[in-house]
Amino acid sequence: MTFQKKLTTVQRKHRSLLCVGLDTDRQLLPSHLPRTADAVLEFNRAIIEATSDLACAYKLNLAFYEALGNDGWRVTDETLRSIPPSIITIGDGKRGDLGNTAEQYAQALYYEFGFDAVTVHPYMGFDSVEPFIRDADRCAFVLALTSNEGSKDFQRLTVGGRPLYEKVVQTVKKWNKKRNLGLVVGATHPDELKPIRALVPAMPLLIPGVGKQGGDLKLAVRYGCDKDGELAVINASRSILYASSTKNYATAARKEAAKLRTLMQRYQEQFFS
Amino acid sequence: MTFQKKLTTVQRKHRSLLCVGLDTDRQLLPSHLPRTADAVLEFNRAIIEATSDLACAYKLNLAFYEALGNDGWRVTDETLRSIPPSIITIGDGKRGDLGNTAEQYAQALYYEFGFDAVTVHPYMGFDSVEPFIRDADRCAFVLALTSNEGSKDFQRLTVGGRPLYEKVVQTVKKWNKKRNLGLVVGATHPDELKPIRALVPAMPLLIPGVGKQGGDLKLAVRYGCDKDGELAVINASRSILYASSTKNYATAARKEAAKLRTLMQRYQEQFFS
Repeated sequence: MTFQKKLTTVQRKHRSLLCVGLDTDRQLLPSHLPRTADAVLEFNRAIIEATSDLACAYKLNLAFYEALGNDGWRVTDETLRSIPPSIITIGDGKRGDLGNTAEQYAQALYYEFGFDAVTVHPYMGFDSVEPFIRDADRCAFVLALTSNEGSKDFQRLTVGGRPLYEKVVQTVKKWNKKRNLGLVVGATHPDELKPIRALVPAMPLLIPGVGKQGGDLKLAVRYGCDKDGELAVINASRSILYASSTKNYATAARKEAAKLRTLMQRYQEQFFS
Repeated sequence: MTFQKKLTTVQRKHRSLLCVGLDTDRQLLPSHLPRTADAVLEFNRAIIEATSDLACAYKLNLAFYEALGNDGWRVTDETLRSIPPSIITIGDGKRGDLGNTAEQYAQALYYEFGFDAVTVHPYMGFDSVEPFIRDADRCAFVLALTSNEGSKDFQRLTVGGRPLYEKVVQTVKKWNKKRNLGLVVGATHPDELKPIRALVPAMPLLIPGVGKQGGDLKLAVRYGCDKDGELAVINASRSILYASSTKNYATAARKEAAKLRTLMQRYQEQFFS
C-alpha cells in the first residue's frame, strides 16, 4: 500500500490527525520507574496501548533511543512491534548524507526497523534524499520550516526574493515523482503554514510544535490539512508522555491525547465540512 | 586538552593531515571475511593497527554502524577502543535537531561513545548546534559545502549576493566563542576552499572527497590548511579501506594511507615552508 493510502486510511479509521511523539527520556519517566532501557520500553508499550485508537501515527525521536547505548536498537525494535501495523511509524532521525551513506540509513530505518517514514535534512540536496524515496510505500518528510528558535538563522534567509524554506518546498515538490515526499513545518509558524499548504496541496505535512512548544493547534489544522481536512500529521510529544508522573501516567496520557484529538476533530468540522 | 590542541599535537607527532574514514560496508569486506558485525570489527581493528601512525584522525560514518542493527552500538564502541587515545575520533552522523534532542545526541556521541568531534547540519540553526559546543574539548564540524553532487541544490543558492554556504561559514564563525567549531568543505570544490579558508583562518576544516570521489588532494592541502600548514583534516575512506579485497587488505590499506600522507607532506613543504 502506498504511504499516502496508508496514512489517509488510518486517519479516517481513527478520525485522527494526531501523531504521538515517543521522545521518551529516561530522566523524565514517572517517578516509580527505574531509569533503565527496560523501563523506557515498558513505558512506551503502556503509552501505545493507551493511545493507539486515538493516533494516526507514532514518531520515534531516534536521539532518545541512541542515548540508551547498547540497548537502543532493541528498545526501538520492540517499541515498533508494539504499534498496530495499520498505524504510521516515523523514524525521526533528521538524516542527511550523501548517496551511498543515505542508502545505508534507508536500509536500516525502512527494512531493519520497518519504519513507514523518516525525516531528512534538505541541505545536501537530491542525492541525499533519493534513497529514501525509491519505495513508494515509504515517505521522507523533508525539513522545511522547523518549530525551533534556530529556524530563523538560515531557513528564513532570502533567496531570489523568497525565503529559503519556500525554495525547499518548491524543490521537494519537483522531486515528488512517486508522491512519497512530505514536509516538516512547525506549528509555531501558523502564518507560513497557509502559503506552504497552497504550494503543495496534496503532500503530507508533519507538524510538530503543538503542546509544550506553544504552537497553535487550531491553525495547524486549518492551514495544515489538504482540502479534505486530511494529510496533516500533527505531533505532540511531551504534553502526552509526561501528562502525569504518577503510576496513572498511561491514563493521563490517554486523556491528553483524547483531548487533542477532540480539538482537532472540532477544527476539522469547523473548516472542512 | 582543547580539541584544537589535541588536533595540532597529533598532526605534528604523526606529520599527517590524513583522516581515515571507517565507512565500513559489510558487503565490501575482503572476500575471505563473512558479512557479519564481528567481521566488520575485525576489519576495523586491522585497518586501525595498520594505519594509526599515519593518521591524525579516524572518522566513523555512523550510518554504516546503524546498518548493523543490534550489533551496531558494540561494534562502534569496540572500534573506538582500538584507536590510540592521542588520535582524533569523529562521529560522522550529520546530526541536526532542536535543542533538547541535540542534547541527547551530544550525550550519546561525546560521553557514551567518547567521540572527540561530530558532524552537524546547519539548517536548524544555533539551538541545534549549541549542545555540541558546550565542551571546549569537543568539536562540531558544521556542513558548509559538501562533496556530493546534491551540494548544488541548496548550498549554492544566492543569499544577499553571496552563496548560502558562505553565509553558513560566516554564521558559524560568529558562534565560535569557545574555538571548537569546524566546517566540512568537500575537496571536490577546490575553487571555493581558498575563500572559505580566508574567512576562517584558524578553524579546523574537515575535507572529504579525495580518493574515490575525485577531489583534488594538492589543492585540499594548499587551500585547506591554515597559515602554518595545519588544521586541514583530509578524509579518505574507500580508497584506503578497499585498497585490496584479499587477505592482504591491511597491508594494502597501509600502503595507500602512506602514499596519501607522503603526498600531503610534499604539498605542505611546497606551500608552507
